[in-house]
Amino acid sequence: MNTLLTVGSVAFDQIETPYGKTDKILGGAGTFGALAASNFNITNNLVSVVGYDFPAEYLQLLKNHNVDISGIEQKEDEKTFFWAGKYHQNMNQRDTLVTELNSLANFVPKVPGHFKNPDVLMLGNLTPVVQRQVIEQMNVRPKIIAMDTMNFWMDTMLDELHKTISMVDVLLINDEETRQLSGEYFLPVAAKKVLQMGPKFVIVKKGEHGALIFSEDDVFAAPALPLDLVFDPTGAGDTFAGGFTGFLAQTMDFSFENMKNAVIVGSAMASFTVEKFGTEKIQHLTKDELFQRIELFKKLTSFELPKDVF
Amino acid sequence: MNTLLTVGSVAFDQIETPYGKTDKILGGAGTFGALAASNFNITNNLVSVVGYDFPAEYLQLLKNHNVDISGIEQKEDEKTFFWAGKYHQNMNQRDTLVTELNSLANFVPKVPGHFKNPDVLMLGNLTPVVQRQVIEQMNVRPKIIAMDTMNFWMDTMLDELHKTISMVDVLLINDEETRQLSGEYFLPVAAKKVLQMGPKFVIVKKGEHGALIFSEDDVFAAPALPLDLVFDPTGAGDTFAGGFTGFLAQTMDFSFENMKNAVIVGSAMASFTVEKFGTEKIQHLTKDELFQRIELFKKLTSFELPKDVF
Repeated sequence: MNTLLTVGSVAFDQIETPYGKTDKILGGAGTFGALAASNFNITNNLVSVVGYDFPAEYLQLLKNHNVDISGIEQKEDEKTFFWAGKYHQNMNQRDTLVTELNSLANFVPKVPGHFKNPDVLMLGNLTPVVQRQVIEQMNVRPKIIAMDTMNFWMDTMLDELHKTISMVDVLLINDEETRQLSGEYFLPVAAKKVLQMGPKFVIVKKGEHGALIFSEDDVFAAPALPLDLVFDPTGAGDTFAGGFTGFLAQTMDFSFENMKNAVIVGSAMASFTVEKFGTEKIQHLTKDELFQRIELFKKLTSFELPKDVF
Repeated sequence: MNTLLTVGSVAFDQIETPYGKTDKILGGAGTFGALAASNFNITNNLVSVVGYDFPAEYLQLLKNHNVDISGIEQKEDEKTFFWAGKYHQNMNQRDTLVTELNSLANFVPKVPGHFKNPDVLMLGNLTPVVQRQVIEQMNVRPKIIAMDTMNFWMDTMLDELHKTISMVDVLLINDEETRQLSGEYFLPVAAKKVLQMGPKFVIVKKGEHGALIFSEDDVFAAPALPLDLVFDPTGAGDTFAGGFTGFLAQTMDFSFENMKNAVIVGSAMASFTVEKFGTEKIQHLTKDELFQRIELFKKLTSFELPKDVF
């Protein structure tokens, strides 16, 4: 089986939306990514760090999804990364109420020996230095390296970020981050500048408006499914990344055509995550549900305009 | 030939964008709509009003595009509607610098006798009372009536607006207006509420994010073409409406499948309008250009995800 290695946070989230409020629940980019990727026939490896307060049942949940958790370090003297946030009616806006980095503050990823030859490497949103430390621990360069990042690293360590971006094949960022990183407003121009920084593909995430994928010669627009209710957007981007890289690890086809498929699969999975709090939906996803949702995505955008109409 | 009747402003625009500035140029919803619709093999009728200062050459331009302008009243004692606006880098935001209603202020549309049996009626964004006055002048109800509107009428004459909306088949509004009109945030729920007001189809325009079309049972997402430069967005929505209704008038197929096509055609035409100031691009559009752009729209969203991949 082909191997995906995901590096990302495994954490506690506490979430408030107009529709409800949670206690501390399982969260983190690595968690959502690995759970999404668990829908593929791949070896699904996760590198992360948690604290002494992290429940064994959450680790067991990951194991039950065939995630190899031997790369999750458990710190005996630190607590687990904790984020609390509140979403408003416009789900694109959220207030961060609490960020306790805890065990993530001084995270130096230790990649186990049997994790060092992945076919696909997914670098979740961590400091660009940590992301690079992971790349440097690989025995051979993975066939494809994807990374997530955020505006915070553009504001605070742009040079380090540029170094890491230059080493990857796929960059996943949102539209505003694409504009910030490139200094360009219009996305095709902005994406072109980002491509010149190294990646072969830039995936621009636009939340309720879907996602765009740019390569030097091509562009593809994946819609977002119009949903009656976005219950909790937490983890949607990480689920997208996990679906995207999991699909690539299984298919090992890095053509633009297959990148399109990977983006649709990621989008379909993310559309499930937002239906319930946290990982509740994605951890129980069935293949049938996923098939049906992908069919909805096809139906949503396909048209057959006859050529002889004019 | 099937007949489209468009009612909408014929006006002067003065536009400033980050890329340049115009003098008073030809504008107005009726102008953009009729020019877009002139790409179809239909009888293309326009009802509007202008002032004594409106140049004969602009009327001639419409005539040269086979627009029947006998429904354009020219007031001898009033000036033409004039709008001046300034766009910022984010082309979704604009400041209105001048609005002189002039001849449009007391516009009572007079539909010429040979205009009173259209197959398709497009009501541009005017007061809901004027829109209804047009409907009431028809000899028989058109097979399809589409209308544009805006938040201003929701703020100032909601009851009149509801009356007019209840009489039409297709409502074209943007996402924020859909939310305002329905009181619902999530678009599928909002659209469902708007459909209960009378229309069979709601088209939700999202600018750079494309458009959605909702019927009771279906939804379709048309992408917007990612453009290297939006030079001037003025008239994009009106071009969309003209392309949409012109296509429907030619094909006379009001199934959801063909509504999808109409939305794509409208989107493709609008993507030309924004490339230059005012009507400059849409008035010189060739069928070859249009074909090629529609192919781009197909390429932009089509994918062939194999079913046996999981």
